[in-house]
Amino acid sequence: MLLKSLREAVLDANLELVRKGLVLYTFGNASGVDRAQGLVVIKPSGVDYDKLRPEDMVVTDLHGKIVEGTLRPSSDLDTHTLLYREFAEIGAVVHTHSEFATSFAQAGLAIPPLGTTHADYFHGPVPVTAPLSDAAIQGDYVHETGLAIVAKFRSSGLDPMAVPACLVAGHAPFAWGRTANEAAHNAVVLEAVARMAYNTLTLRADAASAAGVSQALLDRHYLRKHGKDATYGQEKQ
Amino acid sequence: MLLKSLREAVLDANLELVRKGLVLYTFGNASGVDRAQGLVVIKPSGVDYDKLRPEDMVVTDLHGKIVEGTLRPSSDLDTHTLLYREFAEIGAVVHTHSEFATSFAQAGLAIPPLGTTHADYFHGPVPVTAPLSDAAIQGDYVHETGLAIVAKFRSSGLDPMAVPACLVAGHAPFAWGRTANEAAHNAVVLEAVARMAYNTLTLRADAASAAGVSQALLDRHYLRKHGKDATYGQEKQ
Amino acid sequence: MLLKSLREAVLDANLELVRKGLVLYTFGNASGVDRAQGLVVIKPSGVDYDKLRPEDMVVTDLHGKIVEGTLRPSSDLDTHTLLYREFAEIGAVVHTHSEFATSFAQAGLAIPPLGTTHADYFHGPVPVTAPLSDAAIQGDYVHETGLAIVAKFRSSGLDPMAVPACLVAGHAPFAWGRTANEAAHNAVVLEAVARMAYNTLTLRADAASAAGVSQALLDRHYLRKHGKDATYGQEKQ
Amino acid sequence: MLLKSLREAVLDANLELVRKGLVLYTFGNASGVDRAQGLVVIKPSGVDYDKLRPEDMVVTDLHGKIVEGTLRPSSDLDTHTLLYREFAEIGAVVHTHSEFATSFAQAGLAIPPLGTTHADYFHGPVPVTAPLSDAAIQGDYVHETGLAIVAKFRSSGLDPMAVPACLVAGHAPFAWGRTANEAAHNAVVLEAVARMAYNTLTLRADAASAAGVSQALLDRHYLRKHGKDATYGQEKQ
Repeated sequence: MLLKSLREAVLDANLELVRKGLVLYTFGNASGVDRAQGLVVIKPSGVDYDKLRPEDMVVTDLHGKIVEGTLRPSSDLDTHTLLYREFAEIGAVVHTHSEFATSFAQAGLAIPPLGTTHADYFHGPVPVTAPLSDAAIQGDYVHETGLAIVAKFRSSGLDPMAVPACLVAGHAPFAWGRTANEAAHNAVVLEAVARMAYNTLTLRADAASAAGVSQALLDRHYLRKHGKDATYGQEKQ
Repeated sequence: MLLKSLREAVLDANLELVRKGLVLYTFGNASGVDRAQGLVVIKPSGVDYDKLRPEDMVVTDLHGKIVEGTLRPSSDLDTHTLLYREFAEIGAVVHTHSEFATSFAQAGLAIPPLGTTHADYFHGPVPVTAPLSDAAIQGDYVHETGLAIVAKFRSSGLDPMAVPACLVAGHAPFAWGRTANEAAHNAVVLEAVARMAYNTLTLRADAASAAGVSQALLDRHYLRKHGKDATYGQEKQ
Repeated sequence: MLLKSLREAVLDANLELVRKGLVLYTFGNASGVDRAQGLVVIKPSGVDYDKLRPEDMVVTDLHGKIVEGTLRPSSDLDTHTLLYREFAEIGAVVHTHSEFATSFAQAGLAIPPLGTTHADYFHGPVPVTAPLSDAAIQGDYVHETGLAIVAKFRSSGLDPMAVPACLVAGHAPFAWGRTANEAAHNAVVLEAVARMAYNTLTLRADAASAAGVSQALLDRHYLRKHGKDATYGQEKQ
Repeated sequence: MLLKSLREAVLDANLELVRKGLVLYTFGNASGVDRAQGLVVIKPSGVDYDKLRPEDMVVTDLHGKIVEGTLRPSSDLDTHTLLYREFAEIGAVVHTHSEFATSFAQAGLAIPPLGTTHADYFHGPVPVTAPLSDAAIQGDYVHETGLAIVAKFRSSGLDPMAVPACLVAGHAPFAWGRTANEAAHNAVVLEAVARMAYNTLTLRADAASAAGVSQALLDRHYLRKHGKDATYGQEKQ
């Protein structure tokens, strides 16, 4: 069996997506590349996560030709292989439909860098591709999805190692990294960052009326839990 | 030990609030009344839920005088006893700071009856009290909280058995029922109803632009999972 | 006992709704049909999910007449049987009050196809019925609920196999499929799709101000975790 | 080994943040101070929570000089030590990127006191610092973060014991307390308070249209579950 340790790493990256709540049923897929051998290891399509074993992973070349494996590879294979061909430094790719990153993709909005959690991982906005044309959708669709990601990075002068994720408009996020573990980690953090960006943007829009409770109520509740006249809880011995 | 089975029922109601995610730390309390004996059983104040035993419950009369128990009763006792005195048909009271019901209380908004889930339990809006005056807050505050609930029901002609909950403005919900189990159940459903009302109201305000993806993308994705040319997943045997 | 394997499949579909967090207490119900025998298997009304056994399922004919079973069937039975009579290809029906699909139903809004997750399962918007008239509500209400669904599909020229779900205005969703497992799966995905549609619509409305942090902060945080001068974590061996 | 019981308390405070869902991966850190000895105990940087042991904690003096320990301390150490030097009554500091408190920090908004849950813990708004200047970010950044917190408290005349938390603009919250347990508890409650404040503010902005279901539907659903003609569930024995 080829690439035993990469198979294990790719399987574990797939399972990390499950452990962190990023996938429902069989949505989502992770792959890894062996640059020396020019081989890609990817999750098979539509197999339950709790049944996946390293030997179920599918091995293909960098153009998606199956080299080892009896199962059909993930239907998103051609996006993964294009990213490996175009982004020379990446070692693994993860695709999910995680809730908040997908919501930004559906809204056609990049995720702006609103805080340091974002800045710890993404050195600028997480971009969103242009919508795919009808011709692209009706043509070699999965390949075209990869082209849209690459076009976005090239046209914006983005370094895929400094911004290791992209939202596909109307679809969902792809994330990547040097290793399968790092790609999954980046996908998990992307979802957390998207969630907080959602909260921040909706809060900014709606926070005009921030009038609080009365000073009397503030005093009453604070003082019944704090200070010498506190009455909450049991007497301290 | 007085009222063994009521103690057990009140303890289980308190624990149901924990099981359903309505309480954080020691927030929240449940009580029950024995109408024949004129006695109330209530959770002690500030004791960890995982350490509570039936014998820790505090027994008081209908005016809050302790009849049995060495622990200090819940700091909200006087609201509970007032509700028992004023609402003759109720057998148990539950108070929580559950997230969405509390958010409506903080916003000073009643929960409107937006769907059948609400209608299955509450025969009209779940009302919100008037804000307490500074004098009421600085006076017999916990008693005044009960008075605000009763005033709301009396002035609006509401039947506490048909609408078994009330939001206290700037504070949080109280719910009740014929039994401790029913009161906790009503508090749990109130939170679910509040959560869906929140979603419904924010959705109505924001749903103006519902333009979807292109027909080409809709076709491509639907048809790769359905029909004779589907390519997702493994070949069916 | 009639229809042993269908009973088991219907029970498992009911339990899948619990496993995926779509039901609270006894809300929700699933049924399946045996077309050859003209018999429907449905969950009994108001029985705790953790006590349900295959033999508790109720068997009725296609007009809801009980053929086998001692328990009262789900109160939504007449909606299920009408759907079986009108939609010839469906084999199972699921009804839930899942949070986000119900929120769209309460808002009276169809779920627009905002992304490929939606398109993978629903070949167009998930429609919402017209509100039921007072006469329909006061009449044969559960049957009328089914009529409202069928009317929506007929008047809009929708294929129930291409759009396997409908929201009932002011109420909640129904979903269906060829098998009990597929119907439950569709209900679970419907909830995920509704959740992301909610996020997308509220985000579009509120995302006007997307100003991010300063470039200095972006640099500082990114560079303390990445590159040769990174200081986060332990020294790599 | 120095400060055994403080090490255990600090470790437990770190783990409480994990138990309550406030941290993802290795985000977040807690420390405690021994005032008599002038020593600080803090979590090491970037070590998995499930591998942390009391002996992994790092001991420094009040200016961050390592006194005991082989691991690198949390990268936020200089903020912790500054807070200990400036706020004489605090005994522990906690830093997280918890979702909703961080969202307020990212929005640059203080958390207003919207209800009694807030008032039970924070005697006024939870403030947000001014954004750090580029010079501060490019200078002694972690120290400057602490200065921004202290500046906010000094300029607003706030008592750090009455408002035991602060949001750092564009970053995330810091919370503190007399003990490590109390600091973690305050951080957990801060997140709950932030979550409800988010809901309250967005609800206030969006709740204009609260029209409910028809009276007929309200009656139908309420009465099928309540009263003498109820038909839901099984016959009561």
